[in-house]
Amino acid sequence: MALIVQKFGGSSVADADSIKRVAKRIVDTRRSGNDVVVVVSAMGDSTDELLDLAGDCTPVPAPRELDMLLTAGERISMALLAMTIKGMGVDAYSFTGSQAGMITTAEHGAAKIVDVTPGRVREALDKGAVAIVAGFQGFSRDSRDITTLGRGGSDTTAVALAAALDADQCEIYSDVDGVFTTDPRMVHKAKKIDYITSEEMLELAASGSKILHIRAVEYARRHGVELHVRSSFTSDVGTIVYNPEKGHPKGETVEDPIITGIAAELNEAKVTVGGVPDVPGKAAQIFEIVAGTNANIDMIVQNVSPADTNRTDISFTIPVADGRKVIDVLNKNQAEVGYEAVNYDDQIAKIAVVGAGMRTSAGVSAQLFRALYDAGINIEMISTSEIRISVVTRADLLDDAVRVLHTAFGLDADHDATVYAGTGR
Amino acid sequence: MALIVQKFGGSSVADADSIKRVAKRIVDTRRSGNDVVVVVSAMGDSTDELLDLAGDCTPVPAPRELDMLLTAGERISMALLAMTIKGMGVDAYSFTGSQAGMITTAEHGAAKIVDVTPGRVREALDKGAVAIVAGFQGFSRDSRDITTLGRGGSDTTAVALAAALDADQCEIYSDVDGVFTTDPRMVHKAKKIDYITSEEMLELAASGSKILHIRAVEYARRHGVELHVRSSFTSDVGTIVYNPEKGHPKGETVEDPIITGIAAELNEAKVTVGGVPDVPGKAAQIFEIVAGTNANIDMIVQNVSPADTNRTDISFTIPVADGRKVIDVLNKNQAEVGYEAVNYDDQIAKIAVVGAGMRTSAGVSAQLFRALYDAGINIEMISTSEIRISVVTRADLLDDAVRVLHTAFGLDADHDATVYAGTGR
Repeated sequence: MALIVQKFGGSSVADADSIKRVAKRIVDTRRSGNDVVVVVSAMGDSTDELLDLAGDCTPVPAPRELDMLLTAGERISMALLAMTIKGMGVDAYSFTGSQAGMITTAEHGAAKIVDVTPGRVREALDKGAVAIVAGFQGFSRDSRDITTLGRGGSDTTAVALAAALDADQCEIYSDVDGVFTTDPRMVHKAKKIDYITSEEMLELAASGSKILHIRAVEYARRHGVELHVRSSFTSDVGTIVYNPEKGHPKGETVEDPIITGIAAELNEAKVTVGGVPDVPGKAAQIFEIVAGTNANIDMIVQNVSPADTNRTDISFTIPVADGRKVIDVLNKNQAEVGYEAVNYDDQIAKIAVVGAGMRTSAGVSAQLFRALYDAGINIEMISTSEIRISVVTRADLLDDAVRVLHTAFGLDADHDATVYAGTGR
Repeated sequence: MALIVQKFGGSSVADADSIKRVAKRIVDTRRSGNDVVVVVSAMGDSTDELLDLAGDCTPVPAPRELDMLLTAGERISMALLAMTIKGMGVDAYSFTGSQAGMITTAEHGAAKIVDVTPGRVREALDKGAVAIVAGFQGFSRDSRDITTLGRGGSDTTAVALAAALDADQCEIYSDVDGVFTTDPRMVHKAKKIDYITSEEMLELAASGSKILHIRAVEYARRHGVELHVRSSFTSDVGTIVYNPEKGHPKGETVEDPIITGIAAELNEAKVTVGGVPDVPGKAAQIFEIVAGTNANIDMIVQNVSPADTNRTDISFTIPVADGRKVIDVLNKNQAEVGYEAVNYDDQIAKIAVVGAGMRTSAGVSAQLFRALYDAGINIEMISTSEIRISVVTRADLLDDAVRVLHTAFGLDADHDATVYAGTGR
């Protein structure tokens, strides 16, 4: 008998029919002899609807009250799911984040998990019942208030519960079949990945793949939780995200493919601070100023300063949503830093090729540059990690670039992938 | 500085505009120097919408999960109201029934309040903030589960909090101006009552007036809480429901009017068990059988048995909704009881005239019978308490009967009342 945590996103419980379909799957898993803990998101677009309602009431909702409001969403879906399962003859209890022991910091809207004490969940399992837990929400012991983990937090709830309960597997259900070598809506020959290491998944999630929340992947990697990303519409096996230190789940010793997947991100902008005095400490000064805005800085490139000047250019990428405040703070500090001009460009695309195999394969960068060069695609920025190479190109070249790289690294499937409308987030 | 509890029903917070209007009123009350605790129902029809959703998922929802589901309704309205008040510059915190210390029995859907420990509400008040409390919901210490008090329970929450906090007044807001001498939609010359004793209010509520939940009135009477029933659309004073033992709120010594108000009820049925053997214990046997269905039996009449038979007829009224199960259980026990026939009649109306003044006034019954007789309205059943006379007539004569009595007891206003669409429940 295994203990399985199953997480269902909002699109999997969008209406009564979807809830019945999900309930049936849970009942089947329970009747197969497994202990089942379910983590559920709010129904369909209900979180956005609640946010709209809040916006209609007041321009800047108080964070404590916003958390109180949004947590009503999972309360509805979890109660409906529990009563539907009970109606199918299997005992079930729903638990709020607080009841399930998801203890967090008091930061409303972005709380961090500090402890998981799932006593009531265990009691339910001991009674032979299915435990349905609200995703995304927790409780702060300090403030005695209800908190939320932020958007996409339900994945993290599922992983944290799986870790605390020492579950055998954590299944993340959505409306896609698993993790693909790249977005199948962009590259029709994208292939479902059967096995991926948590490190690679982390790089893909950080580089624009929306299938799993980066925080959940990080939590899973840290606590050794094996994830199974799969579709709630089929019974097909999806993608297993595993910890390579524990070995391949199937005990396979085949070599890793050099490249596992390609992620693409369009919502980034490039900021270039031009004519920065080439003296020590200037870069630190600039990034301290930008860091003050809490903007998420990604790739950073500093040009070599031409010999005849004492000035240099510094470029970095940030999410488009942070563009306004970053430019504002740079403008405000121009005199202090002493740079000549700042340039903002949101017509860029970021592409990341990820693969644990590149660690031991020489020439991956060369292969990547050659493929893009042959396709006439200019690279504007480059950054690398041990298992990832990211490049920035013009936004309108994104599709071409991903397709070219997908083919160059041997990722193309024989057949086109089935493409779904949503992403299941 | 007074401590005021304000309760707003679902129609008062049906949308963002209504919430802003209610928030403005609360902010004004706070800025006038009062401590304010607000009890709020779910928005508009949202409770019914959640019930429909549950019905779409499973035919007979588990009570625990139904309570979990329905309590999402007040969670949404209270959070929106709190953030709107904060947006207007007054500090506010929303609290679930559990957080506000509404400790109940574990009976889902019909929990009874066993303790009120509003520590967090007091803390909020001590900070100068407004406390917004979810109506209708509580928490069972025994089961550690969320409970609901049943429909209309928000009135009870407000009264219980007012009692526990020793509030100076408990204001019950709805979309009507107060308690009327009778339903203004039926009798256009109905008058708003300025002062009514809790006993009279209890009799009116028990007899079909929908303006206040009977349980809330009973709780208020028992705990000496003064209620102010008023409209959330105007600033007019409504109706004060007071404890006569504490004396008239205005210190007035004017005599009570003989009749204070008239309630009408159409959702009752008359059951007549005919040919019951006239031996001791038969009535008890019948009512034990009926009591087993939990039907709410109201008026009971036993006819004098004709001298030449040893049989008698017993009639009683029950809510129409209980009709099926009562008839079923009587049919099943016919042989055991030995009665001849059972008759069910839901074309009846129940009219109750209520007034503390009738206690000291002779001839009220005679006046009532005379007025109905003059109007050609036949009385089928009669029952009386110290401050109420109830009669049953044909359903199609209800409007006439109420109008005739309203005039006969001098309750008619000079002008027609403003009639609202809803009842504010």
